[in-house]
Amino acid sequence: MGGRNVTTSTVGGKPLGRTELRRIDAWWRAANYLSVGQIYLMGNPLLREPLRPEHVKPRLLGHWGTTPGLNFVYAHLNRAIVARDLDMIYVMGPGHGGPGPVASGWLEGTYSEVYPDVSQDLAGMRRLFRQFSFPGGIPSHVAPETPGSIHEGGELGYSLSHAYGASFDNPDLVVAAVVGDGEAETGPLAASWHSNKFVDPRRDGAVLPILHLNGYKIANPTVLARISPDELDALMRGYGHAPYVVEGSDPDEMHQAFAATLDHCLDEIGDIQHEARTARRQPVARRPWPMIVLRSPKGWTGPEEIDGHRVEGSWRSHQVPFANAREDDAHRAVLEEWMRSYKPEELFTDDGAPVPDIAALHPVGERRMSANPHANGGRLLHGLDMPNFRDHAVEVESPGTGAVEATRVLGGFLRDVMAANMDRFRLFSPDENNSNRLQDVLDVTERTWNAETLPDDDHLAVDGRVMEILSEHTCEGWLEGYLLTGRHGLFSCYEAFIHVVDSMFNQHAKWLKATNEIGWRRPIASLNYLLTSHVWRQDHNGFSHQDPGFVDHVVNKTADVIRIYLPPDANTLLSVADHCLRSRQYVNVVVAGKQPALQYLTMDEAVVHCAKGIGIWEWASTHPDREPDVVIGCAGDVPTMEALAAVDLLREFFPDLAIRFVNVVDLMRLQDEREHPHGLSHADFDALFTRDKPVVFAYHGYPVLIHRLTYRRHNHANIHVRGYKEEGTTTTPFDMTVLNQLDRFDLAMDVIERVPHLETVGGAVRGLLQDKLVEHRMYVRAHGEDMPEVRDWQWQRGGGPEVVTADPEQNAPEG
Amino acid sequence: MGGRNVTTSTVGGKPLGRTELRRIDAWWRAANYLSVGQIYLMGNPLLREPLRPEHVKPRLLGHWGTTPGLNFVYAHLNRAIVARDLDMIYVMGPGHGGPGPVASGWLEGTYSEVYPDVSQDLAGMRRLFRQFSFPGGIPSHVAPETPGSIHEGGELGYSLSHAYGASFDNPDLVVAAVVGDGEAETGPLAASWHSNKFVDPRRDGAVLPILHLNGYKIANPTVLARISPDELDALMRGYGHAPYVVEGSDPDEMHQAFAATLDHCLDEIGDIQHEARTARRQPVARRPWPMIVLRSPKGWTGPEEIDGHRVEGSWRSHQVPFANAREDDAHRAVLEEWMRSYKPEELFTDDGAPVPDIAALHPVGERRMSANPHANGGRLLHGLDMPNFRDHAVEVESPGTGAVEATRVLGGFLRDVMAANMDRFRLFSPDENNSNRLQDVLDVTERTWNAETLPDDDHLAVDGRVMEILSEHTCEGWLEGYLLTGRHGLFSCYEAFIHVVDSMFNQHAKWLKATNEIGWRRPIASLNYLLTSHVWRQDHNGFSHQDPGFVDHVVNKTADVIRIYLPPDANTLLSVADHCLRSRQYVNVVVAGKQPALQYLTMDEAVVHCAKGIGIWEWASTHPDREPDVVIGCAGDVPTMEALAAVDLLREFFPDLAIRFVNVVDLMRLQDEREHPHGLSHADFDALFTRDKPVVFAYHGYPVLIHRLTYRRHNHANIHVRGYKEEGTTTTPFDMTVLNQLDRFDLAMDVIERVPHLETVGGAVRGLLQDKLVEHRMYVRAHGEDMPEVRDWQWQRGGGPEVVTADPEQNAPEG
Repeated sequence: MGGRNVTTSTVGGKPLGRTELRRIDAWWRAANYLSVGQIYLMGNPLLREPLRPEHVKPRLLGHWGTTPGLNFVYAHLNRAIVARDLDMIYVMGPGHGGPGPVASGWLEGTYSEVYPDVSQDLAGMRRLFRQFSFPGGIPSHVAPETPGSIHEGGELGYSLSHAYGASFDNPDLVVAAVVGDGEAETGPLAASWHSNKFVDPRRDGAVLPILHLNGYKIANPTVLARISPDELDALMRGYGHAPYVVEGSDPDEMHQAFAATLDHCLDEIGDIQHEARTARRQPVARRPWPMIVLRSPKGWTGPEEIDGHRVEGSWRSHQVPFANAREDDAHRAVLEEWMRSYKPEELFTDDGAPVPDIAALHPVGERRMSANPHANGGRLLHGLDMPNFRDHAVEVESPGTGAVEATRVLGGFLRDVMAANMDRFRLFSPDENNSNRLQDVLDVTERTWNAETLPDDDHLAVDGRVMEILSEHTCEGWLEGYLLTGRHGLFSCYEAFIHVVDSMFNQHAKWLKATNEIGWRRPIASLNYLLTSHVWRQDHNGFSHQDPGFVDHVVNKTADVIRIYLPPDANTLLSVADHCLRSRQYVNVVVAGKQPALQYLTMDEAVVHCAKGIGIWEWASTHPDREPDVVIGCAGDVPTMEALAAVDLLREFFPDLAIRFVNVVDLMRLQDEREHPHGLSHADFDALFTRDKPVVFAYHGYPVLIHRLTYRRHNHANIHVRGYKEEGTTTTPFDMTVLNQLDRFDLAMDVIERVPHLETVGGAVRGLLQDKLVEHRMYVRAHGEDMPEVRDWQWQRGGGPEVVTADPEQNAPEG
Repeated sequence: MGGRNVTTSTVGGKPLGRTELRRIDAWWRAANYLSVGQIYLMGNPLLREPLRPEHVKPRLLGHWGTTPGLNFVYAHLNRAIVARDLDMIYVMGPGHGGPGPVASGWLEGTYSEVYPDVSQDLAGMRRLFRQFSFPGGIPSHVAPETPGSIHEGGELGYSLSHAYGASFDNPDLVVAAVVGDGEAETGPLAASWHSNKFVDPRRDGAVLPILHLNGYKIANPTVLARISPDELDALMRGYGHAPYVVEGSDPDEMHQAFAATLDHCLDEIGDIQHEARTARRQPVARRPWPMIVLRSPKGWTGPEEIDGHRVEGSWRSHQVPFANAREDDAHRAVLEEWMRSYKPEELFTDDGAPVPDIAALHPVGERRMSANPHANGGRLLHGLDMPNFRDHAVEVESPGTGAVEATRVLGGFLRDVMAANMDRFRLFSPDENNSNRLQDVLDVTERTWNAETLPDDDHLAVDGRVMEILSEHTCEGWLEGYLLTGRHGLFSCYEAFIHVVDSMFNQHAKWLKATNEIGWRRPIASLNYLLTSHVWRQDHNGFSHQDPGFVDHVVNKTADVIRIYLPPDANTLLSVADHCLRSRQYVNVVVAGKQPALQYLTMDEAVVHCAKGIGIWEWASTHPDREPDVVIGCAGDVPTMEALAAVDLLREFFPDLAIRFVNVVDLMRLQDEREHPHGLSHADFDALFTRDKPVVFAYHGYPVLIHRLTYRRHNHANIHVRGYKEEGTTTTPFDMTVLNQLDRFDLAMDVIERVPHLETVGGAVRGLLQDKLVEHRMYVRAHGEDMPEVRDWQWQRGGGPEVVTADPEQNAPEG
């Protein structure tokens, strides 16, 4: 912070009159005072008496360093909102500056509206202070509990993508987004600057990024604060922005500089939007959007030095600047002096309420950023206008036949969903929309693209609604921001690469869990993942494309927010998708293949099967009238096919064997009803899987998950699971199942091994199957494709379903 | 590719003589020919006869689009290596261009050296073609099987961080790194450009990034190819680079332009290094490193059009440009014409070997990029010079006493490791090194920092060896690159945020698994994670900091490469760390707290306990001479403390109860020996946990993992696990265990409930414990800290161990 005492600013001028300046500064001081109070005090909130040890919390927690900067910006945004009647929300990347927005929400009255016991008076202020980072209180981070927030910010990197997500389809909204210079070092944040190439200034709102360089992280300086001003300027211009710098530490000068800069940026935003919205020739060329570089001291207005060490403007003010204020009289004196430096007597009435000058700064009603309904998206949520998914049904005259790409059928349905909801629904994908066979949506909309185009480009438009950037992080962040502000969407991704956003999923799932317990938070649309290009068809892509573990990761989150579906064919996928798009407050994970595959259920059957989530397929069972000798279970499209083929083999050799065939669509049905809302009772589970018969289960992912979900079941000891074992490398589709022993031959041998009365004859048949397996393997290695009897296998060769044949292009390999 | 036919170049000149030009072009054509052959052919490799259907593979897989660009660069790097005797490796971000480096490795002879059956003759060329993306062959991506590669590249984003990792401490190495313009959109890649602020030009080698703008991803254009040249230039300068553009499509012109540019960049690198290495005043100011923007058509030299659609220079050439070459005569004719356009008769002898012009271009021996030992890092691996970890032993006179920060003790050991290995060991952390209490390493080295510094900065230096950037992705990528080139390191991270690199861990673990099966790949040092700031001490940070699920994620990978350790105290942590730093080819995950905590084992005991990985603590058991009535198991520091405190409660109420106390350090000991090399036999497991007695197990993470690991055990039905349940928000340390019911009172009540003969008296005691629990909870809510009898609890109050008291700063909250 070399020149921190000299205020410099790209934009000149002193737009603030004396009253405005006084009000802004009063707000800032008040918010800072309340922030320090939250971190330190549990009594004597207005310092009506000298600070005594018992007024100070025994354990001091929280982050001061970033907070005054957040408060500074808040005050200025408020002035602008009032002056321009702006519809604005505020995304705070440094979410650990939690005391700031809590303080501002309280100053605006919103906090007391949603938490009446934290009233705008002395008792309320005491509660405000005490609850912060206190058992039974609120976390130190901006949290779902914080009015006005859609962004937790404890895990850094997502402020800009959340902000852009909020701005899409909200033409009148301005999203101010503070990016911390720590956060700016993260990959997800670095990528998300390019979001401006996906904004339609006619239809979308604006994001105003404010890069806050306070210079330090926990213990290190930040990269962007320590590159030259020229490099930083170039970086921002390279990202497509016009940067405006405000740098300094003198409050009055900084107020003037920031106000002038903010006015300038808002004018420029207005200009860009006006031009785009009125130009006769569309689209107008993308212009750089304004952004602000705010360079101010870390822990600004805090103690300059403690015990001979610099604190303000140093990494030492990152958290609690000094921790001994309870026991150490000198430190406590510093704390008192610090808090009194804000002149609380000028800021709060005798009753502890904010003085009129402060109330005069902030807007009223829903214009308050802490009360803006966009930040409580459920309040604005309009359900999707849902077309009838049955219109897209695939005809299945005979089960286990045909060659349909399930996700392509889904694409037709999504096209209709899109067409009926062109203001509230988007698709997100890391350049995989077409690869995932959802291209039919491009009949009714385009891919969002606000950069150069060339004649050979395919379906690009500024106002497109299919959002594709090769960043899972950005896709996820956009979608989260879009959902959190009351809209709907779906993220389609290759199964293996969804792990890229494991931690983002964590945060969103936790957000949903937390908001379920917060009365004033209204339910939002579910976050829907479509995972395709799945592990069983990675016949050429190598190990990087093989990983079915996202489902395992998801299952670790609380049961009330997660749902997992493995539809075996196109009609079940349609039914599941319809259900997911109507749902609220869940994360729905749908795993479905995109390659031509057999179809099993008619639409009516599919709807019934999906409603149950699990069920016996009588047509695939043998002797369904008898008690089964064995249960074959399956979940996932390829496992279902292999399990069926195993039944086919078995019924040929053992016509008398009673096989029950159970298919699972809704994976959580396997779990105990006490552990998941979708869980089956033990009685229902036993009715499907018996209490004592062998179960051979063909599963899409890692076998252990099936054990995990069923280990409390009576019959668990008899459940034998086959699934992915990390044994794929370069394979054909069937070779992949062979390598992992999920193939029909292994499954059939499993059954023979486990059914007691097959022991005598079984040996010979096992030998035959083993030979077949070897023969197949050798054929594959010799010819590079499956042996015809495997490749062309269908459940009923005599049947005559309407086979939807894939055209050659559809057969293109995955990604 | 608006001006793709006009060659433009920042650097002028035509440095190539006729012979050089001819050789480079011949190499390029040969590599391209071999690449197309790999994708399409299974016979007739030199087109000695007209192409017939059976010469074409039945399933066409692979990616052509990026390959000619990779080959082009390879040819030019070879020229430079020979001309300058460079020690150079080549990292290819677009790893799906696998045919390219395979082709070049074959041209250089390396491929035939490591795979003798793929010889440099006609038979070998046929095998080379056939094996590609063929069952039993090689994947279509650059893979561990590819000589010269340290980078798989199927999951995009890590090429630059891998390249920088390779360059650290390799002053004579130049790492050429092609960044695809698809990859460039990812977060991890976007962040990793800033790696140049962490390079010491005296001590480290150089990375030469080559941003390859071929314009398209799978179906979309790329962002960086469609922003203005000015924006792109600004972006690269903002990242700290001096960009040099080479754009066009005419081969001869492009060869001259690229050669001139490459020479210029290598000169500049030499200049920067020379200046830094000879300047009298150190450190010299950071200068922008050169980088190249190569703008060339996607699928360059491929068919221009097929069926009326543009292919070369379009997204259509991303994968296999046309898929019907086997059945469709016209397409097959296109293929033949395309392959013949490279003039194979000029490139290969009658025997199918490369002609002398090609052999003349590449360097020999280990200068060949495909044979460079840096890309097979195990060949260069020098074990760490290991100091004696016992020197850092914490004295423990009486178990269950003291207050030691385990990771701080580890920091002392790591300091000694660092001091003894200043050329081959580094620490990596996302700004958490000190927060994780490893600051003692700063006694012997500094934090790496090559940007502006200010007086209040702490331990920054250009030649520091503690690498901190707030990007888990960049840290992980650096470390992987460092390890893959034969060095050692440790990544310390907050437990919750390690999920950010879930997918990177996946790739590295799969790489290790694959290399275990490749004879010529030599073992490398293990990837060591130290996870701290763990879930049980997130007393203020809110939900974003709470997630113990990385271990679950890790367990999904194959057992031969993963190891998980949960040392309960400082001495066990030292012993585990020593073991991990000596190990090879593993991913070691070590979870350990950083807060002052009780100590249990003397150094001698710790070494024995860690060697066993699991064991009975007799001193913590009651009536160890008898058969136990109950087993209390535990894994993790906080669970161990709570479990011990539960024993303390129980022995008071039930002096006759025989409790066996089992602590687990090496988590995989719990698993069946057939599933993990560290797994216990059933007999050994039964000897610890009995076959029929109740087991109450206190576990660090999600309880389900313990069930997963033990579900094949005889006594599994009696194992009751308590662990993290996603119930933390704002809590004190103990409140966190209370919320998740992992506290001592709940554990004690579990035991009472499960031991049959306690039923009668147990009810009253349970009531007492329940009251205690409520009392404690109320105390915490009132006072903001644990009730004294909980806070101050130790195993033996009468004992007199040397208590290492934490100073107040050490008590600072987590991150």
